Amino acid sequence: MHGLQDGKQIKVGVLGATGTVGQRFILLLAEHPFFVIHALGASSRSAGKQYAKAATWKQVKPIPSQAREIVVQECKPEHFSECAIVFSGLDADVAGDIEAAFREAELAVFSNAKNFRRDPHVPLVVPLINTSHLSIISQQQALHSPPLKKGFIVTNANCSTTAVVVPLAALERAFGPIESCMITTMQAISGAGYPGLPSMDILDNVVPYISGEEEKIEWETLKILGGIAEEDGTKSFDMHARHPLRISASCNRVPVIEGHTECVSVRFTRRPPPSPQQVREALQAYTSDAYTLGCPSAPRHAVFVHEEPDRPQPRLDRDFQQGAGVSVGRVRQCRVLDIKFVVMGNNVAIGAATSSIINAEFAVVKGLVQA
Amino acid sequence: MHGLQDGKQIKVGVLGATGTVGQRFILLLAEHPFFVIHALGASSRSAGKQYAKAATWKQVKPIPSQAREIVVQECKPEHFSECAIVFSGLDADVAGDIEAAFREAELAVFSNAKNFRRDPHVPLVVPLINTSHLSIISQQQALHSPPLKKGFIVTNANCSTTAVVVPLAALERAFGPIESCMITTMQAISGAGYPGLPSMDILDNVVPYISGEEEKIEWETLKILGGIAEEDGTKSFDMHARHPLRISASCNRVPVIEGHTECVSVRFTRRPPPSPQQVREALQAYTSDAYTLGCPSAPRHAVFVHEEPDRPQPRLDRDFQQGAGVSVGRVRQCRVLDIKFVVMGNNVAIGAATSSIINAEFAVVKGLVQA
Amino acid sequence: MHGLQDGKQIKVGVLGATGTVGQRFILLLAEHPFFVIHALGASSRSAGKQYAKAATWKQVKPIPSQAREIVVQECKPEHFSECAIVFSGLDADVAGDIEAAFREAELAVFSNAKNFRRDPHVPLVVPLINTSHLSIISQQQALHSPPLKKGFIVTNANCSTTAVVVPLAALERAFGPIESCMITTMQAISGAGYPGLPSMDILDNVVPYISGEEEKIEWETLKILGGIAEEDGTKSFDMHARHPLRISASCNRVPVIEGHTECVSVRFTRRPPPSPQQVREALQAYTSDAYTLGCPSAPRHAVFVHEEPDRPQPRLDRDFQQGAGVSVGRVRQCRVLDIKFVVMGNNVAIGAATSSIINAEFAVVKGLVQA
Amino acid sequence: MHGLQDGKQIKVGVLGATGTVGQRFILLLAEHPFFVIHALGASSRSAGKQYAKAATWKQVKPIPSQAREIVVQECKPEHFSECAIVFSGLDADVAGDIEAAFREAELAVFSNAKNFRRDPHVPLVVPLINTSHLSIISQQQALHSPPLKKGFIVTNANCSTTAVVVPLAALERAFGPIESCMITTMQAISGAGYPGLPSMDILDNVVPYISGEEEKIEWETLKILGGIAEEDGTKSFDMHARHPLRISASCNRVPVIEGHTECVSVRFTRRPPPSPQQVREALQAYTSDAYTLGCPSAPRHAVFVHEEPDRPQPRLDRDFQQGAGVSVGRVRQCRVLDIKFVVMGNNVAIGAATSSIINAEFAVVKGLVQA
Repeated sequence: MHGLQDGKQIKVGVLGATGTVGQRFILLLAEHPFFVIHALGASSRSAGKQYAKAATWKQVKPIPSQAREIVVQECKPEHFSECAIVFSGLDADVAGDIEAAFREAELAVFSNAKNFRRDPHVPLVVPLINTSHLSIISQQQALHSPPLKKGFIVTNANCSTTAVVVPLAALERAFGPIESCMITTMQAISGAGYPGLPSMDILDNVVPYISGEEEKIEWETLKILGGIAEEDGTKSFDMHARHPLRISASCNRVPVIEGHTECVSVRFTRRPPPSPQQVREALQAYTSDAYTLGCPSAPRHAVFVHEEPDRPQPRLDRDFQQGAGVSVGRVRQCRVLDIKFVVMGNNVAIGAATSSIINAEFAVVKGLVQA
Repeated sequence: MHGLQDGKQIKVGVLGATGTVGQRFILLLAEHPFFVIHALGASSRSAGKQYAKAATWKQVKPIPSQAREIVVQECKPEHFSECAIVFSGLDADVAGDIEAAFREAELAVFSNAKNFRRDPHVPLVVPLINTSHLSIISQQQALHSPPLKKGFIVTNANCSTTAVVVPLAALERAFGPIESCMITTMQAISGAGYPGLPSMDILDNVVPYISGEEEKIEWETLKILGGIAEEDGTKSFDMHARHPLRISASCNRVPVIEGHTECVSVRFTRRPPPSPQQVREALQAYTSDAYTLGCPSAPRHAVFVHEEPDRPQPRLDRDFQQGAGVSVGRVRQCRVLDIKFVVMGNNVAIGAATSSIINAEFAVVKGLVQA
Repeated sequence: MHGLQDGKQIKVGVLGATGTVGQRFILLLAEHPFFVIHALGASSRSAGKQYAKAATWKQVKPIPSQAREIVVQECKPEHFSECAIVFSGLDADVAGDIEAAFREAELAVFSNAKNFRRDPHVPLVVPLINTSHLSIISQQQALHSPPLKKGFIVTNANCSTTAVVVPLAALERAFGPIESCMITTMQAISGAGYPGLPSMDILDNVVPYISGEEEKIEWETLKILGGIAEEDGTKSFDMHARHPLRISASCNRVPVIEGHTECVSVRFTRRPPPSPQQVREALQAYTSDAYTLGCPSAPRHAVFVHEEPDRPQPRLDRDFQQGAGVSVGRVRQCRVLDIKFVVMGNNVAIGAATSSIINAEFAVVKGLVQA
Repeated sequence: MHGLQDGKQIKVGVLGATGTVGQRFILLLAEHPFFVIHALGASSRSAGKQYAKAATWKQVKPIPSQAREIVVQECKPEHFSECAIVFSGLDADVAGDIEAAFREAELAVFSNAKNFRRDPHVPLVVPLINTSHLSIISQQQALHSPPLKKGFIVTNANCSTTAVVVPLAALERAFGPIESCMITTMQAISGAGYPGLPSMDILDNVVPYISGEEEKIEWETLKILGGIAEEDGTKSFDMHARHPLRISASCNRVPVIEGHTECVSVRFTRRPPPSPQQVREALQAYTSDAYTLGCPSAPRHAVFVHEEPDRPQPRLDRDFQQGAGVSVGRVRQCRVLDIKFVVMGNNVAIGAATSSIINAEFAVVKGLVQA
């Protein structure tokens, strides 16, 4: 089903393994049907220590036995030469150089870092939506001299972008282009990593500002929802240019541990716009290629639509499908634009490591990575 | 200054005195320069007990000595005959009949309940904005036979409406009519009264729904921002009809104790719209008539504009000016409408009891209530 | 292993199925290897409705498919005649009569309610410790005329008692009688059920009082840790009488959703007392009969001992072993008594429904219940 | 009353002015009847900037106008030569050398840092209890060559020590020596300063460990409650030696912003011990010398005793008397020791800056500092 012969396994590495995202990668990979943790990379401070000693483990589940005793390496390609894939949970201040070096060394890099998201040859993939963007990889490889054979970089989107872009893509597929979109987020503290927000700043409080976040949503959404243009054999991301899409985001931090909640309002190009009931049905009916093609971490429901008036809620809905889909509720008319609704996505699952892993599964299915 | 001879005092009563809003009335009135607590009303269950025994006091400040030993009465006008004014913190299920009876008995009623907010002869007054609406009182009195001489009802707005409507009014005064407005609220738990939300529902959570709240914001705003039309000597609220105003609200409950935070985006009728800097200056320059005319509880800054990128925040800003003004920050361009900003208002101060009290002060200043 | 032939199943009912504890019973039973949900009971208000309509579901996991469409019955034995066992999550105000009626009707009742905990013929069983107390059941049955053949009641302990009593039992087994014990609890809000504590009372707060809780800990612990005396063929609980045990509990509510944390200090009868290291080893080595005899819900570690200085923590440790064991940390000397430590137990798992279920499993293993 | 001629003022400085404790000093001093902020010291990174630019202000009240424009200096005595007193909110890693230098330069230093708390010539003063310990200052000054005339250091206690030691002192005054004392704390996050605890660590959680805190309580309490022995003209702290006092503390961090709650149990030397009612009366009757002698920041009630069964609570009681006293409730018998109760003290008021200021007021009253 998933393109691998039964029992075949793929050795993978994790970069930034001791950090928050790295820990999530390890939890997910430890239970993965065909990825096997083979090497762990972190800063020179951690290198040489067993993982269980190097990491300040902050997850609810214990450290998987597969990772406990692996000796952490520095993030240099030579230590990962047996891996076909590396997952990167590196911080942005080091991710750029390291990920480029791994690509150069012919490794497939699936990164949660932001460094390459705006690169014109690197796909920015939310695996429930735009896996078709992986088609740009051959061009990315051809740019190097000599051209790369196996190395490439795929990034996933920012956590707050990911949640909102899934229903937007489903709506565009069903009803054609969206013309404008207002988004107000209420984001969980885990989105800021660890140590992240001081407790004094967020307990009994809302912080109506997250540095750089609104720009990310407004820009990344265009790249993800847009198509790929081809001219003279050269591919480029069209940034939704044929149907200009105006997006306005307002980002807030709230005292929630996990799960970003977002109030979204959209105006369609199509007149008259679809009704709330049509929107509900289109969202519920949406299916991702990743699920259809058998990626084992892809959720059955890319979008789960709640009927209860007070859902989704982060505490109650963030663990549904291991946080790999998004939850939508309160689909209703908007007096200013056309339709408004609430979306909730698990920022540490589909909003981070889970997306990288489904992207890698999809690449395996498509033959872009060899076991 | 405030229209009362020096040292003159006005006896007032509080209806619903044992509830959350009633407790706030008592705290504020205990320190008031000319209102004096004379009588306290509650349900028959509390009647006959000293206030300190009847109330489950839930405020940070202790019960004021002026109220401790007052014997609570049932909410019948005969027990309040020495009062010129009653403040109502009654629950909606009983407020209608009781407030009508007090008006009938020639008492001036300043109510926080929602029952009369949609009455075509009852002003819905946010005291930092539309005290001019008190001019409809004479018509309200004339409707009775025989016409009332002193009795009337004035309501204040819902807490989430109050916060947002103050900057909207300031913007309309400076730049003319607003055409559309998107509002996403993050509301404090104290807005739901006591016991209000179960802790299991809101700790580590967001609830993206507050029953009836969005409709209140969308409707009340039109009445408050609208003018008073007069035809054949009959006044009526015009509901902003000359410049239709579309409002879309999305209301959320967040784990914050006090202070509603709201993300607001507006589109002006005027083209080109004002710049963010012009908006900032207009908001900062806005002054309420209540403050100008010397109402002692009116804040110096109806709108305080923050320059820091991460303000206002409920925990840091809700006590500024005893919560009697509103705080605005992050004034910036909106890619969908014209301008967006964040507003924070203290829902238990300007959003509730404080508004009623400033309304009453204004009525005294205007001679609508006699000492 | 667990005393049932392979594939054999036992039909069970849940009383109080729509409440918080009832919902937990349903979640656990839906995945149980040999208990099968057959009937659900609730108040007459819910009776006649499908479970999914009758319950206000408040769990993180969705309603199990096995329960969704079961039509809820009133809590009368005739509706449960095909069940061998009923689990009771009833409120104390109705549990007494209903549970007695079910016992009378020859059903085995495993109850989380407090009503029969102090009954001299009903065992109060923490399944990791004193399953031996089930031996009093035959006497409980013999008291009826005619004597009951299959009907009996077994209760489990209060959630805060359960957490602390597990390490105390382990220590007594290793080092002999404890002479005195000081306990200060920091209890989760879920311990108060739903709606439970108003959010206004507990956000950013500690409430240093839980009605009746300290008495429960002080009394229940004696019954659980005590033995069974036999005189003239009559059994009775000895309440730890041979070695009087003084217990002093101070109970607090803290803003934590799940998991009771308790600071415990003990003085042993034995002089010199064991060292912290000996205590650690004894706790870690402790094994429950329920686990040894193959009860499928019994945790491998009745007590898990943490070495890190800042553990256990409710958020990080409450889901370990599905919350079926307890976590202990910070074992160290006490300057007033002998040894102090921190214990954390999941109040909605081992502190409630999980205990009832392991008790029932143990009764099955022992042949006290027939399939 | 307070030993200063009417209108006379004393210039003071604040060291560590940009930090959390420094900010509290500034808020309190800005409203002080006779201390006047004259100079502010911080690290070289802040030096040269106006205070409003140098500090990341995190208080609910705005920056006082008296401090806004003061240019911050490095913490060197020459910049504070016009001050009679400096208050130190310095971090422990720099406080030792800097405070010693200021003393050497003949300044009176009132410090919240821990560095000199264990110095045998420096008094550790909780101003509601042991201001008598200031008598050791003359000896501290005499140790220098040449002897100091005006310079000295006075420290106040750790925040969690301060809360508990006030009722303990009141009980010893009334009933004689306490023999043993068990303390379990539930401490607010503000006790850890800023940034302090990451929000990921404490939201929906309890952390049952605070590094070094238990040792501080156990040691500081002995110094504070002990007397001063004199032999051959040399004074020394007797550490409660005549009546050995065993103290056992267990410290926990809880998700509360301000106010440490502590469950305390004591055993008296006196047999029979006092009754709960006698204890209540003794606590309520206790008066501090600081209040009696007119220190303006000393609270009327050093200990306020609550009768309600569920008080004190940090959120409701921490602002009473501006947090300058402590609140006690639930006085009752203990089955292991004699009497147990709950104490709550505001860690950022009496637990920190407020104590230093009352200590300084007392020193002024006693003539130890000249205007």
